[in-house]
Amino acid sequence: MENKKLEKRIEFILGADRLKDVTRRNYLSDGKRREKTAEHSWYVALMAMVLEDHANNKDMDINRVIRMLLLHDLVEIFAGDTFLYDDKAHEKKTEAEKAAAVKIFGLLPEEQGRRFRKLWEEFESKKTPEAKFCASLDRLAPILLNYESKGKLWKEADLVKSQVQGYNEHMAEGSEELWEFAKKRIKKAVEKGYLKDE
Amino acid sequence: MENKKLEKRIEFILGADRLKDVTRRNYLSDGKRREKTAEHSWYVALMAMVLEDHANNKDMDINRVIRMLLLHDLVEIFAGDTFLYDDKAHEKKTEAEKAAAVKIFGLLPEEQGRRFRKLWEEFESKKTPEAKFCASLDRLAPILLNYESKGKLWKEADLVKSQVQGYNEHMAEGSEELWEFAKKRIKKAVEKGYLKDE
Repeated sequence: MENKKLEKRIEFILGADRLKDVTRRNYLSDGKRREKTAEHSWYVALMAMVLEDHANNKDMDINRVIRMLLLHDLVEIFAGDTFLYDDKAHEKKTEAEKAAAVKIFGLLPEEQGRRFRKLWEEFESKKTPEAKFCASLDRLAPILLNYESKGKLWKEADLVKSQVQGYNEHMAEGSEELWEFAKKRIKKAVEKGYLKDE
Repeated sequence: MENKKLEKRIEFILGADRLKDVTRRNYLSDGKRREKTAEHSWYVALMAMVLEDHANNKDMDINRVIRMLLLHDLVEIFAGDTFLYDDKAHEKKTEAEKAAAVKIFGLLPEEQGRRFRKLWEEFESKKTPEAKFCASLDRLAPILLNYESKGKLWKEADLVKSQVQGYNEHMAEGSEELWEFAKKRIKKAVEKGYLKDE
């Protein structure tokens, strides 16, 4: 019985390896190549460890934040990455990701799969303090990297300041401090010519 | 004051982005390219979430395991990856990694940097139940991937069964169950011609 559980878990882990092949739109800080979703997942989980003091809610469970971030993009193995600013793609995204969640978490032993899927649903719903903080980090990461790469993706996608501000302002629900910081970076990006003012 | 702390943390996070450029020796499961250390760090942290029931010590703190794994290879930003089976490189590794730890964790606010460095030292020392379980996962991951890629790296590095067994048997200190599983995979790898018997 225990052995069967272990085998299922190993199947899940081998399936998860494919997240290293999903490519995001944003570039690494040096602008040389686009980021893989597995790398992004590590990055935001590390950011949670580093930035926990800046969450609005001081009582939140940082360990649940880290776990949620490790899982949050696994659905992309089947559903692919959706670019934040692509409204059309986002309409179809929800259904595709739900189906992907059933598929990927369904590889695990039943009780564990249910637990993991609930954690992913919590992330998606953005309602708990933990999920809100996850969302703040998930948005801060590409802003930091886009700024470092001198706005390579912002230019490529022909974005303007009001779009970047508007699509990311809900960062404040998880962390006012991080959103203030992000706004300053966005302002500086415009000053430096990395992002168009309008 | 708080702002200064945040700035230091952001510097650390931007430094950590470079771990996405460190290439490990082993390949992804499809054998198409080598794994990045950032991807590996995500992978083993996820494995900890999935495989916690298989640790020898049932009282260990799984959250510390996950945190340790998120940090465990950051030193490679400055010290590079060292191939497990390269004994010569391992002689020099310890000093280089210690210096790298001072450098990378020194970017953080002092108290936090000290805390992170202690966590990394705990991982390195392999003495606590948490560190032992980290080591089991850190070894299981490449065994799984090497098997899936039909032994691509084992062949490339001209390894034989006794080496793979010998260098990984301390996995049992963190998890007898995972070591038993790994041994079966190694045996199967020999049967399938992915790994030389001697």
